[in-house]
Amino acid sequence: MINSQDTIIAVDAMGGDNAPNEIIKGVAKTTVDTNIKILLTGNEKTINNILSKTNHNKDQIQIIHTDEFITNDESPRQSIKKKPKSSMLIATELCGKGEAHGIVSAGNTGAYILAAVKNIDRIHGVNKTAIASVYPTRNKQKHNDIFSLMLDVGANNVCSAEDLVQFALMGKIYSSDIKGINNPTVALLNNGRESHKGGEIMSKTYSILEALDSINFIGNIEGNDIMQGLADVVVTNGFVGNIVVKTIEGISDTLLQLGKYASKKNLLWMFGMMALSGGIKQLKAVTDYAEYGGAPILGFKKIVIKAHGKSNALAISNAIKVAAKTYRDNVCKNIEEQISKTKLNINFN
Amino acid sequence: MINSQDTIIAVDAMGGDNAPNEIIKGVAKTTVDTNIKILLTGNEKTINNILSKTNHNKDQIQIIHTDEFITNDESPRQSIKKKPKSSMLIATELCGKGEAHGIVSAGNTGAYILAAVKNIDRIHGVNKTAIASVYPTRNKQKHNDIFSLMLDVGANNVCSAEDLVQFALMGKIYSSDIKGINNPTVALLNNGRESHKGGEIMSKTYSILEALDSINFIGNIEGNDIMQGLADVVVTNGFVGNIVVKTIEGISDTLLQLGKYASKKNLLWMFGMMALSGGIKQLKAVTDYAEYGGAPILGFKKIVIKAHGKSNALAISNAIKVAAKTYRDNVCKNIEEQISKTKLNINFN
Repeated sequence: MINSQDTIIAVDAMGGDNAPNEIIKGVAKTTVDTNIKILLTGNEKTINNILSKTNHNKDQIQIIHTDEFITNDESPRQSIKKKPKSSMLIATELCGKGEAHGIVSAGNTGAYILAAVKNIDRIHGVNKTAIASVYPTRNKQKHNDIFSLMLDVGANNVCSAEDLVQFALMGKIYSSDIKGINNPTVALLNNGRESHKGGEIMSKTYSILEALDSINFIGNIEGNDIMQGLADVVVTNGFVGNIVVKTIEGISDTLLQLGKYASKKNLLWMFGMMALSGGIKQLKAVTDYAEYGGAPILGFKKIVIKAHGKSNALAISNAIKVAAKTYRDNVCKNIEEQISKTKLNINFN
Repeated sequence: MINSQDTIIAVDAMGGDNAPNEIIKGVAKTTVDTNIKILLTGNEKTINNILSKTNHNKDQIQIIHTDEFITNDESPRQSIKKKPKSSMLIATELCGKGEAHGIVSAGNTGAYILAAVKNIDRIHGVNKTAIASVYPTRNKQKHNDIFSLMLDVGANNVCSAEDLVQFALMGKIYSSDIKGINNPTVALLNNGRESHKGGEIMSKTYSILEALDSINFIGNIEGNDIMQGLADVVVTNGFVGNIVVKTIEGISDTLLQLGKYASKKNLLWMFGMMALSGGIKQLKAVTDYAEYGGAPILGFKKIVIKAHGKSNALAISNAIKVAAKTYRDNVCKNIEEQISKTKLNINFN
């Protein structure tokens, strides 16, 4: 029922705040919209029960039954050891063995990265995998795309100059191949514009990126430049990236509260906030990746997509479509080629 | 005209985007509102010219004439060497010699820190001085104060666990003495809530803070918690703090743009944004520190306040008042005592 010409994506039915319901509905929607085949790991009875109530194309779904699943509260390291037969581990295993071309999960991020590291090979030459996150910026006329990509946003606390240069390459390829941006601009997130800023690792990264022909490097950007969309790809270590992306995520909640505070002082503002409440909810949805389909974890030989924990069916379906496009467009192969070329040209010592 | 019972603050008349006009107007306002005495460094003719058009109390201002001043575009290191007689260096010198109890400048941040390090002694036992910034949060009913304090936001890229613990102590003292918050809550900015998160330095800092009776430590907070006001004092290294504070600063601009984008799609949103534009400008003013009076650079024996580059007269006047209060409340002395107590009790190795 599933053959070698197909695009096959493994999906963890049991991970995420709205699992399994929204995950399975997202899979169902994908089979109606596209010809992508799904290997769906999770409790077979639950899956069939939800599918029976949802419009779907049965031929495109193969269920792999698992009794166990990993929750958000569990310690990543322990859950990986204790639950080798969980829906998340089985899905990464299928992907690692080549039975699927990519994988999507909305589950426990730490466990997901460890499961991927365990079961899916890194691209030859890549030092570290990196989580790349899209985030909304000021509207960019030139691309008709208000999103930029930031990486790493959580996989690695400490990064060398070589690691950061590799993130720049991977981000650039993803941005041009998947987001369709021609010669994307790349910037380094730093505490000042000048090339010497941020300490030794940052200034070394700056000088390597400046010398690389394959990267359209626009220099350092600062915190207040992030949301202006000056760069299509923003490079940083996972510690800083995690905090920045979560700060941006927290803004919409804060706005609603500050709006209430302001409303008490001014009737015009009160009406303004009321009129905007739908817009703010929509902004929140955007920062929750619902429309965009999740964050790729780049550097593996297969495409690994982390859907947001709060993903609904639409977000899951979009994540699966992005995974399929990433496979069809040979993104992982392109990354391998660029990384190996860069190794030959640049002396990182 | 100025005697030993007075509170005396040195002010750099020539630093800042709106200098000297708004700086001198801020000084003039302060002398009308309070009995604080000002040592004002800068071009005497320009100062007298602006003062002649502004309501002020002549007896509270002593002008120290300087021909030179440092601009924002200059390299901090070079400007400090080249311009020893600049308004900023003379002001820090006066403060270091004990002729003023504190100092305020809205000029070049990097040069200001170097000038302060050169001319004003660090508190005995303090490893590193730290820039503390106020930022707006969701309204906190308990304190009737929507602001929290974050430090360091730019003085040190790399910090040890001992440095971060000292920042926690200094921030706690400033928050309780100057902001009047009883037993302020202190948190560590990290990439997760769990005590082991963020690498070795962060987890070591966590365990020391947890063991300290003098600190009301509430644990790690993440990026999305920053603006919720969970903590009165947020501790981080200067690299991360700089990027986070600037990201928050950049939000109001971005909102206006995203609002325009949203308005095109929805008439109700368009009216909402129009009604709110005054509020967003006010939010921007708040994040620009105009109301709050600037960022203290903690760890010096004298209070050093960095007013925002965009400061208007009100912001400068508030910064001078905060400097005077910090002196009168013995904040630097309190920091010295707490730091020496902590040295005795904690083994940092």
